Amino acid sequence: MSIDPRDPVAVAQALIACRSVTPDEGGAHALLERLLAPLGFEIHRPVFSDEGTPDIANLYARRGAGEAFVFAGHTDVVPPGDEARWSQAPFSGTIVGDELYGRGAVDMKGAVACMVAAVARALDGGGDLGGPVAFLITGDEEGPAINGTAKLLEWAHARGERFSGCLLGEPTNPQALGDVAKIGRRGSLSGVVTLPGLQGHVAYPHLARNPVRELGPALTALMGEPLDEGTEHFEPSNLEVVGVRSGTGAYNVIPGDAALQFNVRYNDLHTSASLMALIAERLDDAVGAGNYALFFERPNAEAFLTPQGPLVETICAAVEVETGRRPALTTGGGTSDARFIKSYCPVVEFGLVGQTMHQIDERVAVADLETLTRIYQRALATAFG
Amino acid sequence: MSIDPRDPVAVAQALIACRSVTPDEGGAHALLERLLAPLGFEIHRPVFSDEGTPDIANLYARRGAGEAFVFAGHTDVVPPGDEARWSQAPFSGTIVGDELYGRGAVDMKGAVACMVAAVARALDGGGDLGGPVAFLITGDEEGPAINGTAKLLEWAHARGERFSGCLLGEPTNPQALGDVAKIGRRGSLSGVVTLPGLQGHVAYPHLARNPVRELGPALTALMGEPLDEGTEHFEPSNLEVVGVRSGTGAYNVIPGDAALQFNVRYNDLHTSASLMALIAERLDDAVGAGNYALFFERPNAEAFLTPQGPLVETICAAVEVETGRRPALTTGGGTSDARFIKSYCPVVEFGLVGQTMHQIDERVAVADLETLTRIYQRALATAFG
Ligand SMILES: [Zn+2]
Ligand SMILES: [Zn+2]
Repeated sequence: MSIDPRDPVAVAQALIACRSVTPDEGGAHALLERLLAPLGFEIHRPVFSDEGTPDIANLYARRGAGEAFVFAGHTDVVPPGDEARWSQAPFSGTIVGDELYGRGAVDMKGAVACMVAAVARALDGGGDLGGPVAFLITGDEEGPAINGTAKLLEWAHARGERFSGCLLGEPTNPQALGDVAKIGRRGSLSGVVTLPGLQGHVAYPHLARNPVRELGPALTALMGEPLDEGTEHFEPSNLEVVGVRSGTGAYNVIPGDAALQFNVRYNDLHTSASLMALIAERLDDAVGAGNYALFFERPNAEAFLTPQGPLVETICAAVEVETGRRPALTTGGGTSDARFIKSYCPVVEFGLVGQTMHQIDERVAVADLETLTRIYQRALATAFG
Repeated sequence: MSIDPRDPVAVAQALIACRSVTPDEGGAHALLERLLAPLGFEIHRPVFSDEGTPDIANLYARRGAGEAFVFAGHTDVVPPGDEARWSQAPFSGTIVGDELYGRGAVDMKGAVACMVAAVARALDGGGDLGGPVAFLITGDEEGPAINGTAKLLEWAHARGERFSGCLLGEPTNPQALGDVAKIGRRGSLSGVVTLPGLQGHVAYPHLARNPVRELGPALTALMGEPLDEGTEHFEPSNLEVVGVRSGTGAYNVIPGDAALQFNVRYNDLHTSASLMALIAERLDDAVGAGNYALFFERPNAEAFLTPQGPLVETICAAVEVETGRRPALTTGGGTSDARFIKSYCPVVEFGLVGQTMHQIDERVAVADLETLTRIYQRALATAFG
């Protein structure tokens, strides 16, 4: 079956038909290779491995030499859940009314299809792209993200690949195409505070030391005072204690220790290192240095902000022309692979409407696929200006 | 093999040889029947049952009509633990040097043996006990205590049995015979506070409500202020939060609820009912009525104090004559079956030295068995004065 690469709906349907639930490639990269190679792209499909994680297929495509403009995305999807609850089979790509149904329709096979269509249309009738263009596609965004974009970027960089800017197609719009482009993300830092006590029988409290007595001060130290008041592009940083655990379950035992799990989503007023120091300082004040143990998970998402400049303007202008609306520039929400890309080149995220992502009956307006293709093509046309 | 009931060491050894780990009778009550029946005691051995708990053997013995002076105790013992770690086999009753080893040596087969020996000596050579005497022996003190002393007392009361006072032989002495007699016990009340929240993703805290934020105020409400300052015979009442639980274990999920488990050991300034009201009032102030759920376990141990009077004086005097020391009158420690007996007659607890109770190598000084027998015999001699 031949698929017209200029048709984002056909490409999206074909991608959705690939059962590429993380970590499975499901034929999605093979399909992209069949579509992009005839358009003059050199295709690489490196597989990355790491102990304890599944092998992951990735795809890198380039056309033209020099600093490339990059379309970035992922073909892996979250599991469909109970398939019986979908009104259309989740890997069928069925169109009902104005909407295309399927797992990945908005997150983010639909956007990948628009990227392919944008490039195909630009080259239609012997046109040119105006400069070097690359695709950076992973199969490990919804999973641990260890064998995906991070390693693909390292691999590309080691080959001498350089990038001028990147458009990442995650679903950024809450309600309608044109709402929001993301120009950065908060960082994320997780850790555990352990408060040691001395276990004992509840009838003899003088022979025990109840660590629960230190929980209140520790909670106040962690959550009592805001970390900052936010910035122009960032919400205030926020720490949530997401777990508390103490006790054996028995009513007659004073617990031997207590533990707090926390996560911080932080803006660019902090780094993971400065936050670690600040949290330790607050705990020192509240419960006393030496009266607690503090453990941090390895930081894997620092806060970042893409500087205002040509890339942001290119994308905002393209969105404005095609939708009549200038997108808000925000940094909210969860992490994305932009946290890896930002170390190599400026990155902006703009994609479909995220409302149904990760849900039963994930779906995209067919008209949005056409509009997003035009936005991507227009951004590409001005990217080398 | 014939055992001399006047010899507390021989009786204790024979009792220890019975493997009467709760709920097993292990032959201990059969042995007591063989020893007490020839001394003129009428023996009853009712077995009590309750759904979900094992059947329990109990023993009630009486000699003489009218309001009886009661010796109370239990023949069940806690499990020996790793028998290989005992220096003497836990059910052998071996004497090494001045000490008799075995599970139950101090808690409280040793004391039961002293009670039997005290009565046997008093009757020796055709003597009399001076009044009616009863034995109230259960096999369910170390277990759930549902089919033991509580039901045995109900059963006896229904038969018309009445008691003037009770000596319970739990190991009350911390260091040496004569240290402490117990004239009451704190009550115990347990419960759970649940704080509802709204679960959500940690990146979107405005869509969630973290119940952990209420934990600090709830902890302060429960443990921040003393419940009282104690009384002449009681330590201050004390509440310990013995468990805290919140969170799914995941760093990215704001928990949907939080729960606190607590236990109060309280003196006779409170009842379980007044404490329930006080705890609810403090939580209302701290987190707001309607912002928490409060559940109490069924109260099964109210605080009580045996009034100063002839029973207390009888026992203190007997201890003083035999040890040269007047015991301190206290109410500390865990609960005992005295909490049931106090509803029928005044009760005082005096027994062996508790240091090794429930431990590997539980043991009693042989000399203490002789001294305690004399104390019990002397108390008996003056009990009807
Ligand atoms: Zn995505
Ligand atoms: Zn006991």
